[in-house]
Amino acid sequence: MTNECGNSRIAGCQLTLFPMSDDFVDVILSALDETDTSKVWKDTDDVSTCIRGKMVHVFDVAHAIYLHAAKTGKHVAMSGTFSIGCPGDTAGHVYMDETDEPMNKKQSEGIDQEAGCKFALYPMGTEEYMEKITEQIDLSNERGVTVTPTHYATRLDGQVNDIFRAMEEAFDKVQQVVSHVTMTFTISANSPSNR
Amino acid sequence: MTNECGNSRIAGCQLTLFPMSDDFVDVILSALDETDTSKVWKDTDDVSTCIRGKMVHVFDVAHAIYLHAAKTGKHVAMSGTFSIGCPGDTAGHVYMDETDEPMNKKQSEGIDQEAGCKFALYPMGTEEYMEKITEQIDLSNERGVTVTPTHYATRLDGQVNDIFRAMEEAFDKVQQVVSHVTMTFTISANSPSNR
Repeated sequence: MTNECGNSRIAGCQLTLFPMSDDFVDVILSALDETDTSKVWKDTDDVSTCIRGKMVHVFDVAHAIYLHAAKTGKHVAMSGTFSIGCPGDTAGHVYMDETDEPMNKKQSEGIDQEAGCKFALYPMGTEEYMEKITEQIDLSNERGVTVTPTHYATRLDGQVNDIFRAMEEAFDKVQQVVSHVTMTFTISANSPSNR
Repeated sequence: MTNECGNSRIAGCQLTLFPMSDDFVDVILSALDETDTSKVWKDTDDVSTCIRGKMVHVFDVAHAIYLHAAKTGKHVAMSGTFSIGCPGDTAGHVYMDETDEPMNKKQSEGIDQEAGCKFALYPMGTEEYMEKITEQIDLSNERGVTVTPTHYATRLDGQVNDIFRAMEEAFDKVQQVVSHVTMTFTISANSPSNR
């Protein structure tokens, strides 16, 4: 296997899946079981799951875990923080040797699931962080998602596949010009209070 | 009522409560009902609840909502982002006229509830953000909480009351030296996978 990480940096995500049902354990374990996590480093405790690896795989895996849980029809949410360029540890660096082919993309694309999501981007270590966000992100061109400004975050509504694509594009654009970037998100589907 | 906001700035939190049970609606509504939110501006949709006001009340309300839900004994988590100094909107500014007395503190202190929590502080707009965090925060002096470093976050274990106090102190210290600060957290109690 060739080392393809020459131009890439390790990304990660601390995420938690929240099925609002008595059988939350089954929903979580099934979603993890249906997701191919072979291209990311993974560590789970009782608060959250941390995945690390190439950016493409970190998004692919978070996206797939959420879809597999939400497709049960239960009210399922996920919150997490994506991060890249954080100075520090080296856990999972061996996963930077994986190829760029996402393992779950094809299956995810076949799952029809609407959701609402709030996300916020935090470019770190720069005084021009607001400019970096507005310069890099033009969500008005995103296909399939309705974009609404809200307090401390931007709301995206639409298909889960479109929401994750929009978030990944925004994160990717900002991390190309800012070394350390984090992005928080909370996505929710099948809520009884949905409009 | 006198205006006491001379030296204070409006804080806010986007938070979501996640009861992992079929009766999640009842758990959420009861927790909100038992919490005195009269000193914060509040807006709820199907993804999250936003509260805004004086920092003391934003923490007091988030803390109380979580405790009232967790004390049911169900597996209940909450994720959110605290923010202060974000350039922008003015919704809720009238709540800066409230007095500093927290409305839920006494009741919260009487609730015995253990939890685990991961949080991360993001001082914005400064190249010295890592230094600001380490300079201001000495969690080793926190009473009642076990502090563990983890990927992209710091883990706190202990009583919910001690965890929220530690987070509020950390956030408060950093916001005294950095204009715009955000802090993410995920807190979880009564998990069947608890140690």
